[in-house]
Order: sequence, then structure tokens, then C-alpha cells
Amino acid sequence: MPSQEAIAQTVNRYLELVAAGNTDEILTLYAADATVEDPIGSDVLRGHDAIRGFYAGFQDIEKETELAQLRVGGSEAAYLWHLTLVTGDSRSRISPISHMTFDEDAKILSMRAFWSPSDVKVL
Amino acid sequence: MPSQEAIAQTVNRYLELVAAGNTDEILTLYAADATVEDPIGSDVLRGHDAIRGFYAGFQDIEKETELAQLRVGGSEAAYLWHLTLVTGDSRSRISPISHMTFDEDAKILSMRAFWSPSDVKVL
Repeated sequence: MPSQEAIAQTVNRYLELVAAGNTDEILTLYAADATVEDPIGSDVLRGHDAIRGFYAGFQDIEKETELAQLRVGGSEAAYLWHLTLVTGDSRSRISPISHMTFDEDAKILSMRAFWSPSDVKVL
Repeated sequence: MPSQEAIAQTVNRYLELVAAGNTDEILTLYAADATVEDPIGSDVLRGHDAIRGFYAGFQDIEKETELAQLRVGGSEAAYLWHLTLVTGDSRSRISPISHMTFDEDAKILSMRAFWSPSDVKVL
């Protein structure tokens, strides 16, 4: 089982990279056969190629991320975070609750994000 | 799939009943074969008898609960909440992130709570 510190480090690094927007760097945090379901109820993406498409889709949007609440247990993490999207003069924010599971090396095995369009707030 | 409103109603009712402390009422929110893992990494309890023991253990402690952030997706919910325990003049608070899945009738199929002793704050 990865240490709680290693899991916290992956979560923090993940949010940094989501803000920085480099898809290839984000993928280094994912195990090869990882899955992504974002938002919950959408198709589950499996493997780096499928996951690459997901992140590439919003790579070029200016973003800020902030970790609000992190809970780690076993080889899993649940966390509330803020994603602020900046488009011109307009800023909007989504605050998902995400769930991740991790392998021995604290690479992400699965990521599931709970949010819905009604959660998007114009700032 | 249960409606988002029905899921939100079960979550709110659950937190009310956790505060009120009546174990039998709490159990009415759970499907017969439901599972509880609280906190993450502890033994998974299955079925009403096992789950009854879990809630009965802290039924008589004075408690307050507050829903801070709720996200519903598909037949699942993730939420951040506050549990305040009152013992004499002392108050302590845990703020778990919980994950629940629900059946067609919005009864709880599984509950998993992410928190650890280091998250407990003396108020």
C-alpha cells in the first residue's frame, strides 16, 4: 500500500498539472491501465490513450486549481477541490468531489469526479 | 436509477438521523444487503445486523451534523460533512468525505467514509 504522504503528493501534483495543462505530464501520474469517469455517469475511459483525449480537450483553457479538503484512507483519496476556468474577462468555478485509487507507487489507478453542470458558478 | 432529489433527500435524512441517534431509524435508510466501511480501510460490515452494531456503538453520544458540500451523480453521492461530538463541556469535530451508492428506491447500498483520527479537531 502506498503511504498517505505519497498519495497526498500525487493528489497535489495532479492539481498542479491540471492547472498547468500539460497532458503528457498529467499522464505520468496515471498507471497504464487506469480509468477515468468524469463526471460520474459518463463513459469510463480506460488507458493512457483514452485519458489523453480527455485532458487534451481542455489543455489550452486557462485554469486555476485549489485543493480544499483532502481525506486519505487505505490506498484511496477523496477530496474537494476548486477548478476555476478563465476565458477572457469571465471566470467560472466548478468544485468537484473526486475519488482516486492508487497503486503501490501512488500512481492513479482510477479517478472519478462528482460534479454536475448545475454546480458551475460564474464568479 | 433514483432521482437526484431522492438521493439528496436520503443523504439529508441520514445526517439528521445520525445526529438524532436512533439506530433503528438509520437502518430504514439502508438496503437489506448494504455495506458500510467507516473509516476506509476498516472491516466492511454487511447487512442490517452488522450495521446496527456500528451505529449503536455511538448512539448515546450527543452529536450534531451538518452537510457542507453534496455532489450527486448517477446513483451515487459524495459529500463533505461535519460531525460534532459533545461530551460534557468538550466539543470535537470530524469532517469526513463520504461516498454512498443507492438502489432504485434511494436506499443506501453502500456507505464509505473517508476520515482519520488526525482529522479530529477539538473545538
